[in-house]
Amino acid sequence: MAKNRKQILLKSRPPGEPSPDNFELVETEVPAPGDGEVLVRGIYMSLDPYMRGRMREGKSYVPPTELGTPMPAGVVGEVIESKSERFAPGEIVEGLLGWQTHGVLPAKDLRKVDASLAPISTALGVLGMPGMTAYFGLLDVGLPKAGETVVVSAASGAVGGLVGQIAKIKGCRAVGIAGGPEKCAFVKDELGFDAAVDYKAETDLKAALKAACPDGIDVYFDNVGGTILDTVLTQINFRARIAICGMISEYNLEKPDLAPRPTRALLVNRARMEGLIVFDWAKRYPEGMKAMAGWIKDGTIKFKEDIRDVGLEGAVEAFLGLLKGDNFGKLVVKIGEEI
Amino acid sequence: MAKNRKQILLKSRPPGEPSPDNFELVETEVPAPGDGEVLVRGIYMSLDPYMRGRMREGKSYVPPTELGTPMPAGVVGEVIESKSERFAPGEIVEGLLGWQTHGVLPAKDLRKVDASLAPISTALGVLGMPGMTAYFGLLDVGLPKAGETVVVSAASGAVGGLVGQIAKIKGCRAVGIAGGPEKCAFVKDELGFDAAVDYKAETDLKAALKAACPDGIDVYFDNVGGTILDTVLTQINFRARIAICGMISEYNLEKPDLAPRPTRALLVNRARMEGLIVFDWAKRYPEGMKAMAGWIKDGTIKFKEDIRDVGLEGAVEAFLGLLKGDNFGKLVVKIGEEI
Repeated sequence: MAKNRKQILLKSRPPGEPSPDNFELVETEVPAPGDGEVLVRGIYMSLDPYMRGRMREGKSYVPPTELGTPMPAGVVGEVIESKSERFAPGEIVEGLLGWQTHGVLPAKDLRKVDASLAPISTALGVLGMPGMTAYFGLLDVGLPKAGETVVVSAASGAVGGLVGQIAKIKGCRAVGIAGGPEKCAFVKDELGFDAAVDYKAETDLKAALKAACPDGIDVYFDNVGGTILDTVLTQINFRARIAICGMISEYNLEKPDLAPRPTRALLVNRARMEGLIVFDWAKRYPEGMKAMAGWIKDGTIKFKEDIRDVGLEGAVEAFLGLLKGDNFGKLVVKIGEEI
Repeated sequence: MAKNRKQILLKSRPPGEPSPDNFELVETEVPAPGDGEVLVRGIYMSLDPYMRGRMREGKSYVPPTELGTPMPAGVVGEVIESKSERFAPGEIVEGLLGWQTHGVLPAKDLRKVDASLAPISTALGVLGMPGMTAYFGLLDVGLPKAGETVVVSAASGAVGGLVGQIAKIKGCRAVGIAGGPEKCAFVKDELGFDAAVDYKAETDLKAALKAACPDGIDVYFDNVGGTILDTVLTQINFRARIAICGMISEYNLEKPDLAPRPTRALLVNRARMEGLIVFDWAKRYPEGMKAMAGWIKDGTIKFKEDIRDVGLEGAVEAFLGLLKGDNFGKLVVKIGEEI
C-alpha cells in the first residue's frame, strides 16, 4: 500500500530548548478504521505551549508522549472513512489526531465542527480548547467581579486575548502583558483591553504594572510563569485570585528556576493561587461553546489566528517559534486543503 | 505617681534573627482608663510566631509595631478599674494588651473569659486565637473530607496540634511534622495523630513523608514554609488544598529564600494554595469557640501549654526560643499572679 501519510514523531527528549533534531518526519501507510472508528484527513493542526510538557518524561496530568510516536495535537479535518454511524465521509470534525496528515480515532473522541459559526480553524482556537480554557479558567478560577482589575499574560495569544475580552464583558478593568509594541497595540486597540504592558520593553516591570493597575490586581490569569508572575505577586489585592494556566517561560528550563516563594504575598493578602486544566470542564463545554459562539456572532469578542500554510513539514519550525513567542494570535498549521 | 508598670518596647528592627538588644524593658506609670475604657493587670501573656512579622517594616496585614512602643500580645488579665458598664473590677478578660504588666483598652476590644470552661490561660490558646486559627483555617480553607490525608507542620504547636485533632474528628488521616522525638511522640501518642515525621531527624524528608502518607497529601496546613513546604508540594494529590498559615522557618531571613516555584505542582494537580489570617473569621468566633469548648469538655481534643513562670522580664528569652522551636505546646508567659 502507498505510504501516503506523513507523521512527525518525537525522536528524543530535549533537556532544555527543543531543536529540530528532537523530531522525525516519516511517511507511513494511511491506516484503516476499525469498528466504531473514523479515518480523518487533517486540514488544520493546532500548536500549543502544553505540547512542550508532553516531550518531558515524568508525572504530569497526562502521560508523556512516547518516543517514536506522533506528537499530540488537536486537528480539524475531513472524515475520509467512517465505521461509526455518528460520522459520514465529507464531514468536518475536530479531535486529538496528533502531528500527522491522517489518523484514526474512535468516534467518541471526535466532535463535529459547525462551519456556519466561524471558519473551521477556530475549532482549534476560540471555539476549541483555548476558548474553553479562557472561559472556564477565568470565570471559575479567577472569579472576576465587576470593577476588579484582571491581568493576563501572553495577552495577544490564543487564551490570553480571550481572557481579557471576557473580563471586559464582566465589567472588569483588563490589563494585558505581551511582548513587543505590535502585540501591545493589538491587545489595546483591537481587543479593547484597558491597558497593555510590554514586558520586553519595560526596564521596570513593577512600575509599569503599577501604572497600568492603579487599584492593584484582583485576578491574574497566568500563562507564562517566571519573573512576570513574581512581579505580579508584589501587587495583588486582598483576596486576589491567581489562576495558573501555563508557564511558557519555564518550559525549556533544564532545572527549575528559583524564585522567592509566593506564600508571603498569599498570606498577607489572603490570596489564592490555583492550577487549572481545561479538561476538567469537559462536561460543561457546550455551555462554554454557546457563550463564545454568541459573543463571536455579535462581534463582542474578537480573535486573531496565525495560520501558517507550511504543511505538516513546517510544524517543527512553527512550534519552536511558538515557545519563543514568535506567533501572533492562535498558532495553526495548515496541513491539508479545505474541502 | 509610682512607676509600677513594666513594659517591653521594640527598640530596633533586626534584619535577621532578633536578639535581646532589639528590646528594652522600661518601668512607667500605670495609666488611668478614660470613658469606655478598662485598666487591665496582665496575668498570662501569649507569645506567638506572628510577632516576628510585627518587628518588620513594610506592608503586611497590619501595620508594624512602632519603635519605642510595646510589642503586641494577647493577654489574659484582671480588670482593675473600669469606665465601662460592660466590665467590673475583678473580672477576667482577654485582649491585645501587648508586652506589659498593665494596660488600658477600650471595652469593645476585650472579651470576658469563662473560667469554668478551662484554665484561664487557654483563652490565649485552644480557646483563643490559635484555636480559632486551627478551626477556621482547617475547615474553611483546607476543606478536609473524610478519608483524606491532612498534613500539618509545627504539629506539636498551639495551632498544629489542634489542626491534626480536628482533622481526625472529620475522619481524615492526620500526619504531623515536628522537630525531635519528644514532640513526635506527643503528636502521635498523646494527640492521636496517625503518624508523625521528625524533620530534624529525617535525612530524606521526601521518603519519610511518603511513608507517612501512602495515599498522598490532600490538605497541607502550613505553619513553617521553607523547604518543608517545597517537599510537601512534591506529594500533593489532585485538587489538594494548601492552607498558608505561617512560615516560621522564613521569618528571620534577611532576604527571601529562593525555591522552585510551586506553580507546576499546582497546575499538574489543579491544586490550590491560599493564605489565611484568623481575624477574617472574627464574626464567627462564637461558633468556633462553642465547638472547641465542646471538644475540650468531652475530652475529644487535648492541648498542651508551655507556661513559663518568668514574669514579663523573661518574655524576650522565651520569644527568641519560640522562633527556634524551643517551646513545646502553646507558649505563654506568666506575668502576674492569678486572683
